[in-house]
Amino acid sequence: MFNRRSLLAGSTLASLAAVSKAALASLPEPVIQTSPDTQAPLVPPNGRPYNPVVTLNGWTAPWRMTDGVKEFHLVAEPVVREMAPGFKAHLWGYNGQSPGPTIEVVEGDRVRLYVTNRLPEATTMHWHGQRLPNGMDGVSGLTQPPIPPGKTWVYEFVARRPGTFMYHPHADEMVQMAMGMMGLWITHPKAKHPHIATVDRDYAFLLNAYDIEPGSATPKVMTMLDFNLWSWNSRIFPGIAPLVARQGDRVRIRIGNLTMTNHPIHIHGHEFEVTGTDGGPVPRTARWPEVTTDIAVGQMRQVEFIADEEGDWAFHCHKAHHTMNAMGHAVPTMLGVDASALEDKIRKLVPGYMAMGHAGMHEMTEMHMAGPANTAPMMAGDGPFGAIGMGGMFSVLKVRHGLKRGDYSDPGWFQHPAGTVAREVGEAPPAATAPHTPVAPGDVDVTVRKPQGHGGRGGNDHH
Amino acid sequence: MFNRRSLLAGSTLASLAAVSKAALASLPEPVIQTSPDTQAPLVPPNGRPYNPVVTLNGWTAPWRMTDGVKEFHLVAEPVVREMAPGFKAHLWGYNGQSPGPTIEVVEGDRVRLYVTNRLPEATTMHWHGQRLPNGMDGVSGLTQPPIPPGKTWVYEFVARRPGTFMYHPHADEMVQMAMGMMGLWITHPKAKHPHIATVDRDYAFLLNAYDIEPGSATPKVMTMLDFNLWSWNSRIFPGIAPLVARQGDRVRIRIGNLTMTNHPIHIHGHEFEVTGTDGGPVPRTARWPEVTTDIAVGQMRQVEFIADEEGDWAFHCHKAHHTMNAMGHAVPTMLGVDASALEDKIRKLVPGYMAMGHAGMHEMTEMHMAGPANTAPMMAGDGPFGAIGMGGMFSVLKVRHGLKRGDYSDPGWFQHPAGTVAREVGEAPPAATAPHTPVAPGDVDVTVRKPQGHGGRGGNDHH
Amino acid sequence: MFNRRSLLAGSTLASLAAVSKAALASLPEPVIQTSPDTQAPLVPPNGRPYNPVVTLNGWTAPWRMTDGVKEFHLVAEPVVREMAPGFKAHLWGYNGQSPGPTIEVVEGDRVRLYVTNRLPEATTMHWHGQRLPNGMDGVSGLTQPPIPPGKTWVYEFVARRPGTFMYHPHADEMVQMAMGMMGLWITHPKAKHPHIATVDRDYAFLLNAYDIEPGSATPKVMTMLDFNLWSWNSRIFPGIAPLVARQGDRVRIRIGNLTMTNHPIHIHGHEFEVTGTDGGPVPRTARWPEVTTDIAVGQMRQVEFIADEEGDWAFHCHKAHHTMNAMGHAVPTMLGVDASALEDKIRKLVPGYMAMGHAGMHEMTEMHMAGPANTAPMMAGDGPFGAIGMGGMFSVLKVRHGLKRGDYSDPGWFQHPAGTVAREVGEAPPAATAPHTPVAPGDVDVTVRKPQGHGGRGGNDHH
Repeated sequence: MFNRRSLLAGSTLASLAAVSKAALASLPEPVIQTSPDTQAPLVPPNGRPYNPVVTLNGWTAPWRMTDGVKEFHLVAEPVVREMAPGFKAHLWGYNGQSPGPTIEVVEGDRVRLYVTNRLPEATTMHWHGQRLPNGMDGVSGLTQPPIPPGKTWVYEFVARRPGTFMYHPHADEMVQMAMGMMGLWITHPKAKHPHIATVDRDYAFLLNAYDIEPGSATPKVMTMLDFNLWSWNSRIFPGIAPLVARQGDRVRIRIGNLTMTNHPIHIHGHEFEVTGTDGGPVPRTARWPEVTTDIAVGQMRQVEFIADEEGDWAFHCHKAHHTMNAMGHAVPTMLGVDASALEDKIRKLVPGYMAMGHAGMHEMTEMHMAGPANTAPMMAGDGPFGAIGMGGMFSVLKVRHGLKRGDYSDPGWFQHPAGTVAREVGEAPPAATAPHTPVAPGDVDVTVRKPQGHGGRGGNDHH
Repeated sequence: MFNRRSLLAGSTLASLAAVSKAALASLPEPVIQTSPDTQAPLVPPNGRPYNPVVTLNGWTAPWRMTDGVKEFHLVAEPVVREMAPGFKAHLWGYNGQSPGPTIEVVEGDRVRLYVTNRLPEATTMHWHGQRLPNGMDGVSGLTQPPIPPGKTWVYEFVARRPGTFMYHPHADEMVQMAMGMMGLWITHPKAKHPHIATVDRDYAFLLNAYDIEPGSATPKVMTMLDFNLWSWNSRIFPGIAPLVARQGDRVRIRIGNLTMTNHPIHIHGHEFEVTGTDGGPVPRTARWPEVTTDIAVGQMRQVEFIADEEGDWAFHCHKAHHTMNAMGHAVPTMLGVDASALEDKIRKLVPGYMAMGHAGMHEMTEMHMAGPANTAPMMAGDGPFGAIGMGGMFSVLKVRHGLKRGDYSDPGWFQHPAGTVAREVGEAPPAATAPHTPVAPGDVDVTVRKPQGHGGRGGNDHH
Repeated sequence: MFNRRSLLAGSTLASLAAVSKAALASLPEPVIQTSPDTQAPLVPPNGRPYNPVVTLNGWTAPWRMTDGVKEFHLVAEPVVREMAPGFKAHLWGYNGQSPGPTIEVVEGDRVRLYVTNRLPEATTMHWHGQRLPNGMDGVSGLTQPPIPPGKTWVYEFVARRPGTFMYHPHADEMVQMAMGMMGLWITHPKAKHPHIATVDRDYAFLLNAYDIEPGSATPKVMTMLDFNLWSWNSRIFPGIAPLVARQGDRVRIRIGNLTMTNHPIHIHGHEFEVTGTDGGPVPRTARWPEVTTDIAVGQMRQVEFIADEEGDWAFHCHKAHHTMNAMGHAVPTMLGVDASALEDKIRKLVPGYMAMGHAGMHEMTEMHMAGPANTAPMMAGDGPFGAIGMGGMFSVLKVRHGLKRGDYSDPGWFQHPAGTVAREVGEAPPAATAPHTPVAPGDVDVTVRKPQGHGGRGGNDHH
């Protein structure tokens, strides 16, 4: 795992600060990740046991123990992130990817974090949600000077609270987060806690958003609202890994939001509870049953549920535009705004005409319309029943019986029991029963069967 | 209620799937609704009793019982929806309107839903929030193929959880929801539940949003943020029915959000609690007192309160732009942005001048400024004290003593007891006491009566 | 505090309504505030004691007792608000400032509020969250006629519920709130309440937003989303006062939102709970631990925590753009959008080139780039370690041991104990250990040290 350098004797913080040449030789070597695939959980080798998290399309940073201190080394640098197959973005991240590696420690651990700045501008590191000495809080100008390009700085504190946290810059943060600089931090509890459950599967990812013009690779960093790529750990569907669970598993999913808007994260077929935030565990008396939890910017949410329904369950942000990718230039601009004038003219001739009418956008899901080079299709993904036609913040929870504990490999598509899938029963009824084919305003004249006075006639409910 | 077709013997799902001609003959006939008015609640004729909901500017779908299964028939089709008197939108909906009819069943009911597609593109139906077989979940490509135009498909499952749910497409859903395709689903509890109260009034509606250019009728379907019509059940004030309650009634209002942003729904004169979500009932220990609940996209909220204050109480989204309608072309463009250059020039001559200054926009409420044909006025509604000057997501909760149980008819405007209305007491005090008439920057030179050192002098509080 | 006029005998509401000349003579004189500084709390002089709030960059309105009724006088008028040193905005407010003075009363108090309209258009006053007679609710057209320019009206009711409330117009409110018309209302409990704690420090402010073009002074009132000034009590960092607390103090912060979007308010170094809303106190069983609370539009939140960590802790909205001010015309437009074409061309020659790359925006924090006259810098504030580079909704919680109770004066910057500040340890490691210097897409070919199979090798955790 570690090369020769990591075998050198560790130095104390004080001696590290003395001479840079010697110090560098003693830094834990940063682990660089080039794959965007979900990596296997980093099982704690010995010492305090815990159930490690699985970072969706990410990985956990290895550490080095030095005199009882867990040492990590994060390198802030430009990275190339494959956001989906066929689409690579030029971002800023840590250790080869955006987001950076997940930091995973145990409550009470003393942690030393080396941060190297390979960016063209100054940065800092803020350890979002941690209790720590004020001077380790990483706010440029307020609690420390910024880290200049080409330098390595060190932070050190005890992970005092168990829970789900983040790290991100607090210097030029609007730009640096718009470029992808962020990572997860998990502190496992050192003992049983009345409001922290033991779970079988523990997933984690961050919500982020980019504004990258189709055919381009670098985000526009001044965008406040009109982002066109809504991502999980800098990946967009169909580039996001599925979440796999054994039927009956208690599943935790930890999610943090570093975009510019709320994301209502929605699960199909199950209900969950928010069991913790970056502020701590939510008491059991205070929990709400939900199928959609709204995660505000800067918030982290732990949701938990029993995966008791077998199947392939959609799991996504419920904002419809956040499950679409950017439109390439090849998308016909007659859709929406620009077509309205034309549409109005045609409608005078053909009542009910809609420029998008006879086509809508569903056909795009099957055409896999080509955009400029290095562009993710707006609507993508092939499923067991044809094109899924989604993008962005969308994945699938795959619940199967009989999986092995700790097996996170993709089980393929669900095999539905006979007779449990929606099916065709015939043609649409003749028009007389559904007279609302498109009409021009004012021409509404249809057979009305008013539902008033249903009492005693509106059903025949034998129980 | 049902015509001859519904009297034919029902078929099982298996036989329905066999031959389409025969199947069609046995479908429950879809009920088509042409009125945008709030329809009377559908009182359950017999069997399990429950207190039916009142869908604001909507109605509940009748059903047919076939071998112990409740059968519904939804027809996805283009519709003309009157969003407010004088303004009709060309939407996509179900059974003649957008939203479609409310599905109202009892916990434990087996439900069979026929869905006919009369749209020009494929669709599916997703039963948001339900526990059901994975193949009935309605996600195009993932759990079923899409329903092609001209076909009828069938879904079947047991309504396992009591609560408030929705239905909407999960195929090209960005477009199809932007066009108005959605409906409510209420599952009444079959028995007493510790966290589900019995209520006297039970209202329900969905939040939706459209981008329809003034003078046009068809929504722009690619809009992500800049919607100009914020609606409840595809209606905008003054087109939204009032919510009527008898003084002392326990009132439940069920609200679901299928727009692209959060809506903070606010009530005047009362406090409420969120007693349930689409995930289930909120335990009593977990409830918060609120006057504004923020409903995220894809979320459903049940709010409950005792209507103990008589009067006409505003009930609305608290985002100020969401209680305004679209600006027609007749609105002077000198307001806001475009006037700033002119304004700056005039201000050099007339300190404090504002292009909108001596007018503001209040005057628009009384002018009822005409827009293009088929356009709702931006600020509208006539109240007992003049123009109300609102639009969009705004209605009135009318609380009156002595109403009959089950009487939902509009009681007219509130008659205030003598001396309980704000009133004029005179002119503004002379300028000397309020010297802050408009001044140019830098010219601030006013009489200061600083409130520092109030201690012992700042009042005369005899208790 | 009050001049001669306030010594005249008070009149009853009935007599006030009779003749305006006499009525005016008996009005409590409105207190006008010209300073944007935080004013000392208004300690209740006698009668029921309570711990008064401190309004951030604001003040509490004095009152007059008349026959057992607390009388206030609010004057709606154009004001000049210094939003930050060097930047003055032309707003509409009350009594010389925006927001208006905080109304602070005790549960059970009868309150009479005179409202004078010195605006060029009609207005009303809505007492957000209060239980009151319907005719005192202030909704133009619905519960009263609007107050015409030049007139004084009166409202009267009993403050029935303890808690945190607001006042704002409910006539042309989109425009009038976009111009800054709003204020806080605090009702202190008259007795111990099981869910209302006694606190040592009690701060309060409102969230507001403006769209003022750099170099201009008047907000654009039609803006729905693209605001460029995100403020607390119409102040932007570095114009926002710090929140000072003694180590160990229980601190309450009351925040209300009258913008057009959610604001996730985040604290560093501590966790808080939401202990109350404008709907009432949150039961202890229902509270969540948080470091970021999302405050929706029209909502009010009371957060509470023990200030047990000494230091200078950032306290801000977590939306990155909301801690930046408006860009002046001097900001180089090559940043972001407009540079992408150029950037792509250069990248063909220089792999990894970014137009903003070698500069980013951090350098702006130190250049203090000049905008047009009367413009706040986009990134501002000088801290103990250099430029802070923030704007908008940002302030600092200053926790110090040994402060005097009731001492709110700025203690200066925190003196960090030795060895508790992040520090430089040397240069960046040689390139071989961090090979991800910028590369062109498709050229990714780096040394991979995959973290799979960490088990037993990925650390050396001796506990």
